[in-house]
Amino acid sequence: MVASPDAAPPGAPSNTPPESPAQSPAADLFADEVYRDAIVDLLGAVGYGEISAFERLSADSRMAPTLEDKVALQGMASAQWAKIDPIVTRLGELGVEPYAAMEPFREAIDAFHAHTAPADWWESLVKAYVGDGLVNDFYREIAGYLDAETKGLVLSTLEDSGRVEFAVERIRAGIEADHVIAGRLALWGRRLMGEAVTQAQRVVASREAVSEVLADGRIDGLDLSTIAGMFERITRHHVERMGRLGLAH
Amino acid sequence: MVASPDAAPPGAPSNTPPESPAQSPAADLFADEVYRDAIVDLLGAVGYGEISAFERLSADSRMAPTLEDKVALQGMASAQWAKIDPIVTRLGELGVEPYAAMEPFREAIDAFHAHTAPADWWESLVKAYVGDGLVNDFYREIAGYLDAETKGLVLSTLEDSGRVEFAVERIRAGIEADHVIAGRLALWGRRLMGEAVTQAQRVVASREAVSEVLADGRIDGLDLSTIAGMFERITRHHVERMGRLGLAH
Repeated sequence: MVASPDAAPPGAPSNTPPESPAQSPAADLFADEVYRDAIVDLLGAVGYGEISAFERLSADSRMAPTLEDKVALQGMASAQWAKIDPIVTRLGELGVEPYAAMEPFREAIDAFHAHTAPADWWESLVKAYVGDGLVNDFYREIAGYLDAETKGLVLSTLEDSGRVEFAVERIRAGIEADHVIAGRLALWGRRLMGEAVTQAQRVVASREAVSEVLADGRIDGLDLSTIAGMFERITRHHVERMGRLGLAH
Repeated sequence: MVASPDAAPPGAPSNTPPESPAQSPAADLFADEVYRDAIVDLLGAVGYGEISAFERLSADSRMAPTLEDKVALQGMASAQWAKIDPIVTRLGELGVEPYAAMEPFREAIDAFHAHTAPADWWESLVKAYVGDGLVNDFYREIAGYLDAETKGLVLSTLEDSGRVEFAVERIRAGIEADHVIAGRLALWGRRLMGEAVTQAQRVVASREAVSEVLADGRIDGLDLSTIAGMFERITRHHVERMGRLGLAH
């Protein structure tokens, strides 16, 4: 439990992302090699995340009970794919080989998916909905701390998240028709969240530039305690999402 | 064998599709229930073909040797997905349940893919290139015989076929690096074409409205001998495509 944003005492984590979390850092932040490396890491992770999300969603679409559901999940996969190109372009502008910048994140992201392979259509849908939500929350949280160009790029990936609404309807209808799946899907939601946190921590700990940026306060307002606040808000939104599905967390 | 529209001697196969293969039939052709049913079948087959192409291309992208190749094949899959929605819309306008209209083609199209499951990345690439070419040739051939609206819809699906050029480059480079694969891929191209023809014949024979439209001459200029001419041109283009890859047919 955390305090709400208005009433919160100093030092307490806030309930919503800060309205203006920090000054957007100036473009010359890129003169700082550590900042640049951390942004390359961020975009590399996001890029491989999209490639991998396409792969999982397209594979999961094979479990769809109807052609319409299959096409809907294929559409979520295609929407992920459309986000890859701008990230590849931006990584190129930052002077790195885009796909090489993604490689360091392959193991952790593949591990996330390997440890959360859906057993059936319901688990696929919950994963699509919960995964999309977690990723979008993270993007919204981090965007305010980035230079304007990286921020624009990260926020542009949020645009078509309305696509997941079909998943909410389907899951609610599925639970309505068969209450037995609710308990299993509630557990599944917890497992998805737990595995996401595990892999995210593993990635942050293993990337020197990311750790340095957080430890050294190179970006105004972004440090380990800010991260703790982010994590609490993301968790809270996850619980709210599970609630929308009619599932307890 | 059919006569070409302008100068070819009777009986000689023509090299290109006729410039103006037929008068575009009037919209009131839809008052003819058999014509309408045949168009529903055409769009149903095209629609399920796209869904299924997405499924195969996305599955095959897992065999990609590099992330860049994987993203390219994912892009071909996404391009197929983008074509589904207009077809679903049009089928709805024609008063049928769109996904139900696709069901009759599921077995033949699934059989095509089951019988041509690529054994490796090279076979995936050749299938993506050859399959895209065959489908586009068929659309171009059939378009001129359709009412304006269906014609526009079918031709709009041709737009992004330039996407396959990456496949041509990769296959040529692959053969350059290892001549041994050329013989296997040449055989593979023949098998793809043979299986496509087998399944297409099976579909036409099983669909009453399609057979009737062809047998009764309901569309000016479209009959079984026109179809034979189309088939010859499509085969010829297939051979040319295999040649572009450096493969004999």
